[in-house]
Amino acid sequence: MIRPALELVDQYRSLVFIADYHALNTSRDPIALNRRIHEVAATWLALGLDPNQVIFFKQSDIPEVFEMAWILSCITSKGLLNRAHAYKAAVASNRQVGKDRDAGINAGLYNYPVLMAADILLFGTEIVPVGHDQKQHIEITRDIAAEFNATYGRVLRKPKELIRESVMVVPGLDGRKMSKSYRNTIPIFAPPEAVRKQVMRIRTDSKRPEDSKDPDRCNVFAIYRHFAAPEAVESKRHQYRSGGVAYSHIKHELVDLLESTFGPFREAFRQLTKDPSGVDRVLKDGAARARILARPMLAKVRRRVGIESR
Amino acid sequence: MIRPALELVDQYRSLVFIADYHALNTSRDPIALNRRIHEVAATWLALGLDPNQVIFFKQSDIPEVFEMAWILSCITSKGLLNRAHAYKAAVASNRQVGKDRDAGINAGLYNYPVLMAADILLFGTEIVPVGHDQKQHIEITRDIAAEFNATYGRVLRKPKELIRESVMVVPGLDGRKMSKSYRNTIPIFAPPEAVRKQVMRIRTDSKRPEDSKDPDRCNVFAIYRHFAAPEAVESKRHQYRSGGVAYSHIKHELVDLLESTFGPFREAFRQLTKDPSGVDRVLKDGAARARILARPMLAKVRRRVGIESR
Repeated sequence: MIRPALELVDQYRSLVFIADYHALNTSRDPIALNRRIHEVAATWLALGLDPNQVIFFKQSDIPEVFEMAWILSCITSKGLLNRAHAYKAAVASNRQVGKDRDAGINAGLYNYPVLMAADILLFGTEIVPVGHDQKQHIEITRDIAAEFNATYGRVLRKPKELIRESVMVVPGLDGRKMSKSYRNTIPIFAPPEAVRKQVMRIRTDSKRPEDSKDPDRCNVFAIYRHFAAPEAVESKRHQYRSGGVAYSHIKHELVDLLESTFGPFREAFRQLTKDPSGVDRVLKDGAARARILARPMLAKVRRRVGIESR
Repeated sequence: MIRPALELVDQYRSLVFIADYHALNTSRDPIALNRRIHEVAATWLALGLDPNQVIFFKQSDIPEVFEMAWILSCITSKGLLNRAHAYKAAVASNRQVGKDRDAGINAGLYNYPVLMAADILLFGTEIVPVGHDQKQHIEITRDIAAEFNATYGRVLRKPKELIRESVMVVPGLDGRKMSKSYRNTIPIFAPPEAVRKQVMRIRTDSKRPEDSKDPDRCNVFAIYRHFAAPEAVESKRHQYRSGGVAYSHIKHELVDLLESTFGPFREAFRQLTKDPSGVDRVLKDGAARARILARPMLAKVRRRVGIESR
């Protein structure tokens, strides 16, 4: 997520934010949430986000977002939310186990697309770089913007998603989506020994080194190909097919690759996490700049719906 | 609504607000919404709300409400919203005409109980004077507060509804709930002639003056009994039953009653609506005082969920 985003910052005036109030929806642990917010911020900064170039902030520092979300919810048809993938998936998994369709689903999950639309529309966003899984949210955002504009006149810019096919999701150790809740992540800034241990845990089949293997069905290769140079990826593909790849060997190569990719930033990350108040200052400064964009947009939206400016 | 609320202001530190962002949910006309906000404010003030005694404000002047609503939505089970009367009624009327259950229902209607919970909980409200139709919303608010407190520790005060049986809903000209959308309202501050015209439109049956009538099935009496003195109401009940009430006569009595009830405040209302910026100043001042209560509560709630104070 971070790499393709940082590749865009020279082309576009960019805003990057930490969606802590989206995260709240699945969090019940205040200490963990707070730590995660700081870690995510430190990760972006360590990997090269320049807060002078990018407006970098926390969602929770922009109160305008929530008021905007309410305004949008007044013109968002409920049917639109019923069709959102994340909600439908939750309903489907309830049905599979014979539960009530809405069991365990909270209003935050259901309303997530409205808050995301507010995040996007409040800043007049033109381009949203997303993965395939988020494409529908941008479509919903466009639908909401269109409904608003049709009702109150053209105010909101309809955003476009930017999906780069070459940027694929990095899978987890077990081939599923990488997610803390699956415990299949690689802690990229952990000490090399901890990274090595996780890589060694990657699930492989029982093929011998000399066997021909399909690289696209190997969990090690699935991660490797994101970090190796394109030529190295190509030649590794051939090696997989023609026999000659030992899992233990490719795992060691991956460990080295991760170290050469993230090692240089480890110290920066450590310094940033040692100084949360420094990270906070950066985020506050970003929020102040974001609100300079958000305030006039919200004021305009308020006027259009008949609610005067504060 | 206004009379029982004003009767409480000596007993309780009171907050009265104009729920303009709830109204937005059914409004698509910015000019009408804006005018209605000012008329509602002028009505409270003309009828005696003392803004020095009561914190009187517009919901839209309190941005903390919307952030609070998002936080609450993250711990509000969707099932709770599915059971809300207003939503269920909308679904039922869709079903009756064979439409999709959520046809024409927007997210704002569905999420209304969460915003209302935020309105209440943000101020540590103890007592909410409501009609029977709003009782469930207070129950939902208590459920949401209980869930929050169970998850994050006791922060939110569970409110109680205050339903005074003697305060019944004033029906409209046709016996249905009085509502602008039914065109069955009495414009209490309109010139006497306009009030008279509306009263003459009240639907009655074809009974003759000398016939015995059931006062509780008469649309004129249903309004009359709210404004006449208790003894006058009692003796009128007897007159209905024993014959001797001509509809034209009781209508004229009602016109006089409305004039003696509201006439003295007509001039105050007129002055207030002539000076919207004066009303705005009163509301802004109220909002500033309301936010003195709202800000520390939101800050506390943020800290508890793991989102630091701004």
